Amino acid sequence: MEGTMKCSANYVPLSPISFLERAAVTFGNKTSVVYGDIHYTWHQTRDRCVRLASALSDLGLSRHDVVAALVPNIPALCELHFGAPMAGTVLCALNTGYDSKMVAMALEKTKPKVLFVDYELISVAEESLSLLSDIEERPLIITVTENSTEKSKHVEYEDFISSGNHAFEPLGPVDECDPIALNFTSGTTGTPKCVVYSHRGAYLNAVAVGVTNEMKPMPVYLWAVPMYHCSGWCSVWTVAAFGGVNVCLREVNDVVIFDSIVKHKVTDFGGSPAVLNMIANAPDSVKKSFSWTVQVMSGGSSPPEVILKLKKLGFKVMMAFGCSEAYGIGTACLWMPEWETLPEEECIRLKARDGVNYFAKEVVDVLDPTTMKPVPHDGKTIGEIVLRGNTVMSGYYKNKEATEAAFRGGWYWTRDMAVIDHDGYIYWKERSQDVITCGGEIVGSKEIEGLLHSHPAVYDAAVVGRTDEALGESMCAFVKLKEGAEAKEEEIIEFCKRKIGHKSMKMVPKTVVFTDIPRTSTGKTRKNVLRNMAKDMGYIPLKAVE
Amino acid sequence: MEGTMKCSANYVPLSPISFLERAAVTFGNKTSVVYGDIHYTWHQTRDRCVRLASALSDLGLSRHDVVAALVPNIPALCELHFGAPMAGTVLCALNTGYDSKMVAMALEKTKPKVLFVDYELISVAEESLSLLSDIEERPLIITVTENSTEKSKHVEYEDFISSGNHAFEPLGPVDECDPIALNFTSGTTGTPKCVVYSHRGAYLNAVAVGVTNEMKPMPVYLWAVPMYHCSGWCSVWTVAAFGGVNVCLREVNDVVIFDSIVKHKVTDFGGSPAVLNMIANAPDSVKKSFSWTVQVMSGGSSPPEVILKLKKLGFKVMMAFGCSEAYGIGTACLWMPEWETLPEEECIRLKARDGVNYFAKEVVDVLDPTTMKPVPHDGKTIGEIVLRGNTVMSGYYKNKEATEAAFRGGWYWTRDMAVIDHDGYIYWKERSQDVITCGGEIVGSKEIEGLLHSHPAVYDAAVVGRTDEALGESMCAFVKLKEGAEAKEEEIIEFCKRKIGHKSMKMVPKTVVFTDIPRTSTGKTRKNVLRNMAKDMGYIPLKAVE
Repeated sequence: MEGTMKCSANYVPLSPISFLERAAVTFGNKTSVVYGDIHYTWHQTRDRCVRLASALSDLGLSRHDVVAALVPNIPALCELHFGAPMAGTVLCALNTGYDSKMVAMALEKTKPKVLFVDYELISVAEESLSLLSDIEERPLIITVTENSTEKSKHVEYEDFISSGNHAFEPLGPVDECDPIALNFTSGTTGTPKCVVYSHRGAYLNAVAVGVTNEMKPMPVYLWAVPMYHCSGWCSVWTVAAFGGVNVCLREVNDVVIFDSIVKHKVTDFGGSPAVLNMIANAPDSVKKSFSWTVQVMSGGSSPPEVILKLKKLGFKVMMAFGCSEAYGIGTACLWMPEWETLPEEECIRLKARDGVNYFAKEVVDVLDPTTMKPVPHDGKTIGEIVLRGNTVMSGYYKNKEATEAAFRGGWYWTRDMAVIDHDGYIYWKERSQDVITCGGEIVGSKEIEGLLHSHPAVYDAAVVGRTDEALGESMCAFVKLKEGAEAKEEEIIEFCKRKIGHKSMKMVPKTVVFTDIPRTSTGKTRKNVLRNMAKDMGYIPLKAVE
Repeated sequence: MEGTMKCSANYVPLSPISFLERAAVTFGNKTSVVYGDIHYTWHQTRDRCVRLASALSDLGLSRHDVVAALVPNIPALCELHFGAPMAGTVLCALNTGYDSKMVAMALEKTKPKVLFVDYELISVAEESLSLLSDIEERPLIITVTENSTEKSKHVEYEDFISSGNHAFEPLGPVDECDPIALNFTSGTTGTPKCVVYSHRGAYLNAVAVGVTNEMKPMPVYLWAVPMYHCSGWCSVWTVAAFGGVNVCLREVNDVVIFDSIVKHKVTDFGGSPAVLNMIANAPDSVKKSFSWTVQVMSGGSSPPEVILKLKKLGFKVMMAFGCSEAYGIGTACLWMPEWETLPEEECIRLKARDGVNYFAKEVVDVLDPTTMKPVPHDGKTIGEIVLRGNTVMSGYYKNKEATEAAFRGGWYWTRDMAVIDHDGYIYWKERSQDVITCGGEIVGSKEIEGLLHSHPAVYDAAVVGRTDEALGESMCAFVKLKEGAEAKEEEIIEFCKRKIGHKSMKMVPKTVVFTDIPRTSTGKTRKNVLRNMAKDMGYIPLKAVE
């Protein structure tokens, strides 16, 4: 438009680095990170990140070089989320549960120049390097130790930071669509894919996560969700944007969670269904009470019973549907005020859904994968969740084919099956490969899983299809009982029959197996493992039909 | 990066239009706008905006054509903020306090194809058209009436909307830096300049305003700040982003404000110092109590006493420094928790400052205009506030020279003088032309204005410099007394002397004039008028010095 100009005064590429710069000015003397005896201020964190970026540049790293990390949720990993992009490089935080073979796979794929490794994971890292075929491309290892007695032959993280120049000028992106991070998918369906996040997407998602969680200025955020998973749902950047405190944790368990909440006055955290379950079922001796509400975002699917239990303990759980490709979050279950006037059971049922476009997506819908038309808002018809917006990945790293397949028709196809309720709320059902076809009808295992969770003896449960001569597939339940609790297969089946009542008897499990539920390190049920177990049991012959 | 692609699934130009689209899906049945008997839902508002855009397109309007409005804070103006950009056009909401000469000036400058006019302002609009030199360029007038008995020779707004197609495909920006709105500056320093806002800036500022005000989902926003001023600080877009309610007002006064707060359960509003003053000094018969805290953002400078009075009435006032060029807001006084433990007077003094980078700016600083170096954080040294970021205007419409002058050295120079406190908070002092040089020292009139406001008989006050043989300039106070209150010049001077105490006697006014304080329609003091009045009084000769 006549008279206007685009210049550095009015156009700055969006990047979460700006959150750190602002935090250092506005919240400079406020706590940025706590971890054991470590307390940093935002001023210090900014200084450490600048030195980190400087030291990476001194190694000769430049724009779009990859920096990998095999580090738990400790301060170093917070710092790498800023320090690496401030050197123009791209952070790839690896799953700390990976074995050396998986680490080697990730290193082969991303070819990092530097690998930051926690002192507890050195042997995994070293073993993985020995598995690499191309010796030329082995990254430099920098170890993160926690006290001076842990000696290592590698460069130490604190020495590396000290070697950096505090006056280094952070680089930032040239274009805001430049990559900021690589994140491997959970790999529930096979080899994990490597997802590229941009500065723009990270900025927008970080803000949206804060808004969605009704985060107040200077929140206290507990790191119960792994930072290697979807860049911790971008929350490491959100906390900087809101001038908050990162409460770091090496290990997540019920004792640490309750202790941290009370000690640090935690206001927010994110947690997988496994973490929620852990909190809900914590022994009374571990539970602690607090006078404020803790806002929790849960990125997986939890039954209403768990949400209700957490509510009674002082947590407000906002359910969300997410995936690595969507920067962690695709939809969130925004609570409507009128729900509070409903009977508790109905209210919690509504809150246990996966919700609506949470803020940063342009459009979220559920489409029939064949016709590509939206499913009716009837709470029944199952389709595939599709997303469009600035917080959808740039693509799969070095896998253009998979990128193009995921972006058919201007949508990102999630491979997650869901229904849409009458009020427009999405209710996640299955991964597309987890759908159970029972007597010709697509049915969800989630409802039965919720039912099983409501049984007083059940600690954890999952359901898959088992080949069934009469129905095609029938429900096969895997159940872990609470410590000391007892229940038999017939009891569980009877319980389900009673609860389902007039509804389809197809949904009652024909098989119940008592076992631990295998989960990924990010808390997702490994349904492929359970399906294999069901397969090994063989099919249910016709005569077994009641 | 290898494997990535930029496509419609992962890149959508930022635009506040997306807030409306999401609101229509997520908050479809929730109230969007209330005004008298009018209640719209977000579903209806979206439908009306689409029809409006369609009707504008049907007139032949296309990208970057200007649509002007001379309409108060009623539903039509909310709708125009979405409907105009949904047709690709640029909204220019004009100051409803303009006389026909000013409207003609604005029309000459922006050459709108259509002018929406409120029924009360038809004669101003028609008169302004008769003043236009170029008859070819007269806009089509569309009148906004409030009931069917108001007949007009022009097209009526509701008929215009009805003529639109509900299935029209909204255009949105091609590039997110495309213009969305034109806003005239207040013109305290001469002819108003016309500022260009972009879709990108509007999106980012709307979100930042919500975050800064700690807005919860579904806020109830009272329109006490004119929408024609900085696009209402972008709040019309914020309310859509948060799925809130726009409580529209034709007229702003103390009765309407208190009545609306209680009736609609208002949670948020913005107001000029004049509005804050009006609330603080409302008669007891007008004041109403409410059980919740109302968050107020005030874009001008108010003395601590007013903020304290409002606090006691249930308002949380966040002060902000702003200007049209910065989408309304440049800094905001974020409250630090530790302030609450200080004595009340000190706490309120801190809160009355203009604050820090509120979120959406990249950098805010105060520079010495000569050296272009930052001033020390000493709370004393006066410099000019500079801004940089995505929520700085695209430029002055059709005035490249002024744009370039404003963007020297990669900053937007605000012409606002301020100091920075030890904690990094900015405290606005004067417009650069309002600086008073008293005995060779740059002094602020604001402190004295605050002092005058604390006098029990004073309703409103402003201070300018008066030529003074001894000091160069001395303080000349203009004071409006409360209704029924009495005070003499000597009393006011004596009061100031007593309060200033050991501090510089230069700051005590030598002249006190009892009069109404002239303000712009947006509540800014017309210091140029007062300076002329002081000039007309002549200089203070040497003998008058005590």
